[in-house]
Amino acid sequence: MTDDDTRPPVTVLGLGAMGRALAETFLVQGHPLTVWNRTPGKADDLAAKGARVAPTPAEALEASPVTVVCLLDYGTVHEVLDPVAGALAGRTLVNLTNGTPRQAREAAGWAAGHGADYLDGGIMAVPPMIGGPGAFVLYSGSRPAFTAHEGTLGGLGDAHFLGEDPGRASLYDLALLTAMYGMFGGFFHAAALVDSAGEPVSEFAPMVVRWLTAMLGGLPEMARAHDERDLSDAASNLEMQATAYVNLLDVSRDQGVSTELAEPLGALLRRGVAAGFGAGPVSSLITLLKENS
Amino acid sequence: MTDDDTRPPVTVLGLGAMGRALAETFLVQGHPLTVWNRTPGKADDLAAKGARVAPTPAEALEASPVTVVCLLDYGTVHEVLDPVAGALAGRTLVNLTNGTPRQAREAAGWAAGHGADYLDGGIMAVPPMIGGPGAFVLYSGSRPAFTAHEGTLGGLGDAHFLGEDPGRASLYDLALLTAMYGMFGGFFHAAALVDSAGEPVSEFAPMVVRWLTAMLGGLPEMARAHDERDLSDAASNLEMQATAYVNLLDVSRDQGVSTELAEPLGALLRRGVAAGFGAGPVSSLITLLKENS
Ligand SMILES: NC(=O)c1ccc[n+]([C@@H]2O[C@H](COP(=O)([O-])OP(=O)(O)OC[C@H]3O[C@@H](n4cnc5c(N)ncnc54)[C@H](OP(=O)(O)O)[C@@H]3O)[C@@H](O)[C@H]2O)c1
Ligand SMILES: NC(=O)c1ccc[n+]([C@@H]2O[C@H](COP(=O)([O-])OP(=O)(O)OC[C@H]3O[C@@H](n4cnc5c(N)ncnc54)[C@H](OP(=O)(O)O)[C@@H]3O)[C@@H](O)[C@H]2O)c1
Repeated sequence: MTDDDTRPPVTVLGLGAMGRALAETFLVQGHPLTVWNRTPGKADDLAAKGARVAPTPAEALEASPVTVVCLLDYGTVHEVLDPVAGALAGRTLVNLTNGTPRQAREAAGWAAGHGADYLDGGIMAVPPMIGGPGAFVLYSGSRPAFTAHEGTLGGLGDAHFLGEDPGRASLYDLALLTAMYGMFGGFFHAAALVDSAGEPVSEFAPMVVRWLTAMLGGLPEMARAHDERDLSDAASNLEMQATAYVNLLDVSRDQGVSTELAEPLGALLRRGVAAGFGAGPVSSLITLLKENS
Repeated sequence: MTDDDTRPPVTVLGLGAMGRALAETFLVQGHPLTVWNRTPGKADDLAAKGARVAPTPAEALEASPVTVVCLLDYGTVHEVLDPVAGALAGRTLVNLTNGTPRQAREAAGWAAGHGADYLDGGIMAVPPMIGGPGAFVLYSGSRPAFTAHEGTLGGLGDAHFLGEDPGRASLYDLALLTAMYGMFGGFFHAAALVDSAGEPVSEFAPMVVRWLTAMLGGLPEMARAHDERDLSDAASNLEMQATAYVNLLDVSRDQGVSTELAEPLGALLRRGVAAGFGAGPVSSLITLLKENS
């Protein structure tokens, strides 16, 4: 790389699976890198590749104008950073640890109180995707911090700035995770069904990928129907779906597979029929989730 | 079309959203078509395009060597066909109505008892996809029937024959629907979250599509890890996921969105941690769904 020496120094706190991926990517992209992790052995191979291993979080913070934090949760973030908050003044903290909007806003206030610029973020990728074309990372909080470090952060994956509310990236991150875990839960149940029939899940998986890829195409129309409160489309009406849903619960019981993940949507579909939405699209259920909370 | 007159005649029973799509596709592809529906008005536009409208299910069956059935459920199928079972002898019944493997096997026995060849099927498409490249249909049951009518059935979507157990297509159909409803449920919850923040779901939907498309790529690896009982991969370990999961439940409560669809996976993740699977991949949950049923 011809411009190695122009890459700004970066610190990474946390070398779990995700922190390591972030750190390695910064190294590969030529950033002078300082790392810290509670369990020090995890930094050995990064050190061999040129990273500086800081013995304490304070020294790690002091090594770079910007520190990327990727720890287990916000409790951990505060456990690590509260004692060394004095080292934050004049620096930028980019917290990519998963948390709630409330936690993000609270952390932003705490960082501001210590003179730091704060960006919160949500990583939309698994570790092997970091630095590749599929990854994206949501940011919100300090716009000047985002502008100043966009070049560095963009190396991890597409960097999307969602505005100055530090909680907004977290909201979208958690909403996307909610959708993902729904899909994963559905897949776990489906896989258990196939497995319970004595068949390999590996042969089923490509069929699921094809099917879900096709069904993903329907989400924007569901979103539009919800936003416009349009109940007219009935190409796959809710009552028909409530009827078919019973069959997937029945086959699960027949095959000794738990229906625990699937029962609640069955109940919601029934509530949708009872509320008079049977002839329309299933997107009416989005509103029921808000009203019945 | 140059070979219209070589297309075999087909009958379609049921002109709901899906039956209509099947019937229209057969018409467009040049099959002499006979249709029947409980509510007769639904056949008017098909009649205008050349379909013969049978006044009774018996006359519909008698009009073609092969009849495709697409009614609401198996209860409806028996309500419609039991009284006219005498017309089945020597004909082929292709039942694309959603049902369980048990219902499919029972229907196959019933059809055989009346001298009919029986194929059960699961349509993996929404109506607008029928006849297009994205649709596929799973079949199982009589192999001779599949071989004889593969050309006709292939016009609806890719035709996959899954073997002679009439229940197997239904098992795979229901497993795929289970995965889809997991994804839909996750999306409904995610959409309610975004909506509860006063933001349009339509702008969120393309982000979900991008994210879920990327995460779909991980399903084959989960399937492999499950089939091989490989607990080694920890790029996204179960305990970290159980920790992040709490955040999506918390933000939902904060924003007045029901957690009803998401609670069970939270409980299952906790069970996975308690069972000692915390350091490994989430695919270990598939087995927990089988053992705890
Ligand atoms: N992996 C993914 O697929 C993924 C994707 C998107 C977002 N994320 C988010 O990224 C963050 C990290 O995830 P990960 O996959 O890297 O998790 P992980 O592999 O389990 O690593 C957890 C990290 O937190 C540290 N830690 C935990 N408790 C600590 C404590 N009390 N004091 C100091 N350090 C502590 C660990 O240090 P030790 O090494 O000393 O245990 C390790 O560095 C999480 O918020 C996660 O939600 C992960
Ligand atoms: N739509 C989809 O996205 C989709 C996708 C894959 C599979 N499927 C499956 O395809 C089948 C049909 O679905 P659909 O979307 O066409 O449903 P639909 O639009 O609700 O139509 C239901 C059909 O069943 C008939 N029916 C209901 N009760 C009856 C009774 N007691 N006697 C006689 N006929 C009766 C209806 O006749 P009337 O017109 O007289 O009411 C209509 O023809 C279902 O098993 C469904 O699971 C649908």
